[in-house]
Amino acid sequence: MLSFDPDDSRYLRELSAFVAIPSVSRDAESATMRAAAGWLAGQLEFAGGLVMVPASGHPFVRADWLDAPGAPTVLVYGHYDVQPTGDEAEWITPPFHPTVDGDIIRGRGTSDDKGPVYLVLKTAQAFMAQEGALPLNVKFLFEGEEEIGSPNLAAFVADHAAELAADLVISADGAMWRPTEPSVSLASKGLVSLDIVVEGASTDLHSGRYGGTVANPIHALAVILASLHTPDGAVAVDGFYDGIPPLSAERRHEIAEIPFSAGNYLAELGLTLGHGEPGYTTLERLWERPTLDVNGVRSGGKYTVIPHVAIAHISCRLVPGQDPDHVIDVITAHVEAVAAPGVRVTVRADEARVPAYTIAADHPAIRAATAALEAVYPGQHVLNARVPGTLPATAMFERLLGVKTLFFSFSTADEKLHAPNEFFRIRRLREGMRAWEQLWRLLAGTKEAS
Amino acid sequence: MLSFDPDDSRYLRELSAFVAIPSVSRDAESATMRAAAGWLAGQLEFAGGLVMVPASGHPFVRADWLDAPGAPTVLVYGHYDVQPTGDEAEWITPPFHPTVDGDIIRGRGTSDDKGPVYLVLKTAQAFMAQEGALPLNVKFLFEGEEEIGSPNLAAFVADHAAELAADLVISADGAMWRPTEPSVSLASKGLVSLDIVVEGASTDLHSGRYGGTVANPIHALAVILASLHTPDGAVAVDGFYDGIPPLSAERRHEIAEIPFSAGNYLAELGLTLGHGEPGYTTLERLWERPTLDVNGVRSGGKYTVIPHVAIAHISCRLVPGQDPDHVIDVITAHVEAVAAPGVRVTVRADEARVPAYTIAADHPAIRAATAALEAVYPGQHVLNARVPGTLPATAMFERLLGVKTLFFSFSTADEKLHAPNEFFRIRRLREGMRAWEQLWRLLAGTKEAS
Repeated sequence: MLSFDPDDSRYLRELSAFVAIPSVSRDAESATMRAAAGWLAGQLEFAGGLVMVPASGHPFVRADWLDAPGAPTVLVYGHYDVQPTGDEAEWITPPFHPTVDGDIIRGRGTSDDKGPVYLVLKTAQAFMAQEGALPLNVKFLFEGEEEIGSPNLAAFVADHAAELAADLVISADGAMWRPTEPSVSLASKGLVSLDIVVEGASTDLHSGRYGGTVANPIHALAVILASLHTPDGAVAVDGFYDGIPPLSAERRHEIAEIPFSAGNYLAELGLTLGHGEPGYTTLERLWERPTLDVNGVRSGGKYTVIPHVAIAHISCRLVPGQDPDHVIDVITAHVEAVAAPGVRVTVRADEARVPAYTIAADHPAIRAATAALEAVYPGQHVLNARVPGTLPATAMFERLLGVKTLFFSFSTADEKLHAPNEFFRIRRLREGMRAWEQLWRLLAGTKEAS
Repeated sequence: MLSFDPDDSRYLRELSAFVAIPSVSRDAESATMRAAAGWLAGQLEFAGGLVMVPASGHPFVRADWLDAPGAPTVLVYGHYDVQPTGDEAEWITPPFHPTVDGDIIRGRGTSDDKGPVYLVLKTAQAFMAQEGALPLNVKFLFEGEEEIGSPNLAAFVADHAAELAADLVISADGAMWRPTEPSVSLASKGLVSLDIVVEGASTDLHSGRYGGTVANPIHALAVILASLHTPDGAVAVDGFYDGIPPLSAERRHEIAEIPFSAGNYLAELGLTLGHGEPGYTTLERLWERPTLDVNGVRSGGKYTVIPHVAIAHISCRLVPGQDPDHVIDVITAHVEAVAAPGVRVTVRADEARVPAYTIAADHPAIRAATAALEAVYPGQHVLNARVPGTLPATAMFERLLGVKTLFFSFSTADEKLHAPNEFFRIRRLREGMRAWEQLWRLLAGTKEAS
């Protein structure tokens, strides 16, 4: 068994340096993204870490340690980019000044995905320092565009398919379902996104001098957005649910058996009432059903104007059976059918279209991951969960490299990912290192030196 | 008859200096607002121009010329504050770098209300220079908060009611209806405004990890906003139209007689279809009917989030018969009734509540204004129009000073007031000065020296 640092001080110092680089893929300058990539490459020196800058997009980080002949090869995937901060005024401490606060470290990217990436690096370094080798062959691939839909990842993997060939992808992205017990994820949802743009007059108009005589784009947009769901929370777009197999009685039973309090779940969010597709429990909605959310809306301001344009940003989380292109098509048709006269309505679908992804419960990687977690969390049952989030890389790896992806992240779903005050549980650093050690040993067929 | 400058160069230079002061009452620093007030006071030196700083709010500018014993006294009202610029990228030239472009001058405030205020000053100065006196007693009162609902004007007028006593208020704010013929305005609409705040979870949530299980505040807000109008454009809030007398056949006939092309009106706005309350023509909607417009909406952004708050800004233009408090009450009741479960909905009504205002067509001031315009625009019919915008000061002047307000502005309604690329027609400078000269002479009972 590897020995790790007796206390967390070095780990927190190093992780803080990584988090302090504001690598927001949506709008950071390229120098900032290269700084984050460079930091990662530096940590991968033992495996020849390289920053590879593609023709367009943020850099990839690559490294290979392939000195375990006869052992399997895994490709470790993660990302160094982060979501925008949102309103910085809502952060308790500045998003890029990572701060230890009791048993957590707070900062944008601590949980998604810099913390989970960081602990893999430390596991590998500990193997090299203490055993002079990793127990199996490991290729590393980290990208800087996961939070914007990985627009350049597929081309990179296709161009380097031979060098990236592996028996399994292990993703350091994803998340444990909740802090109370370990879980492995058997699926992630797909993702499509689009903007609805409603345009009225050629310019903003004085609401007195023109009010009541021309269509207001905000009113027209509100009608469209209100039409996307039924009052009780189902998606009201005809064809949205096409292709989804019915939820089996067996799976419903399996989910019902999981200890879960919808009341506590809501209370932690400051809510008393849930809301969602009728006929499903909270966990079924979360894991098994697709969603359509308006993520943003923007027009005019607090002054007496009829704005000439109103914009909504929409994204959908998809489940197995749904075709991303078909989902875009039916939403577009719905919006065009609902659009009021007197305004121009345009639907702009984003390029990135990610189908849902699954891995079988009896896949050898799932069995190994379950065993690794059982070793690190003795006496606890390892749940079969889902990632209701989207990992765009998974379907692509299967298509281009012909292998499945195991989600093996030590992020937890309640760590305010994508929101202000994102944090990471400090204990997950140590639990994660130990678990990666076990996982690699198990996958290598190596017996653990206990 | 006064003689004015043979060309416009000085006028444009001076007006540009006034417009270049970015006196945006919503968010300018107090030094900027004082600079604009100071510029005005300087122009009123002949009447002892003073900047008066109230305990709260932006300064007032006051001046009196009272050396016409036996002649009537008028109080000239206007404002030196301007609307926010909106998106500066949409301006052809920067909003606070006023630019002459052919027969117009472009810049924020050129038309609302700095240009129309400026030309009164020049008229008065020309009287003083050429005749050594004004034809009647004139008090000047300019404020810096018109665009934010004049929150401190009533208290100022109440505190100085004796000094401000006059036989008539003449407002340099307002607007000619259109550039093709002169018009006098017999009414202005009232105004109330409010915000609708919809709150969900206590923090922004990852749309994958929580999507489908909790109410999305944007969805709930869209349902509320969509419910405020019928599909064909009437306000759907029960009680909104309470108290409005039916439009008389006589008034309908009068409006129908006015040469007006709804097609051209829409074409100038880049539109082919109008939209509004059914059963009324475009002009009837504009002049005789109240409106409810969502002016702004804001939540989240283009990333995969369920925002925890969504906000809409709403304002209503009111007509005679509507009680502003009642309108706020019925909207609040409507919103509360429509609010979906799973979110908290709050209606925040703004303090400023302005009723509609009217002046009789046969009021002596209207007769004098009509005659003055006929003199400046020979051979043209002077229309009886309405200001569909709101001049909050009018009802207050009537209440506190007991006098009517004559709208006498040389702004034109198509000059992109409150929008990017606001402009003022340069010819209106000269037409306006001549008209104010005529108006003052007529009100004074002085025969014009032609």
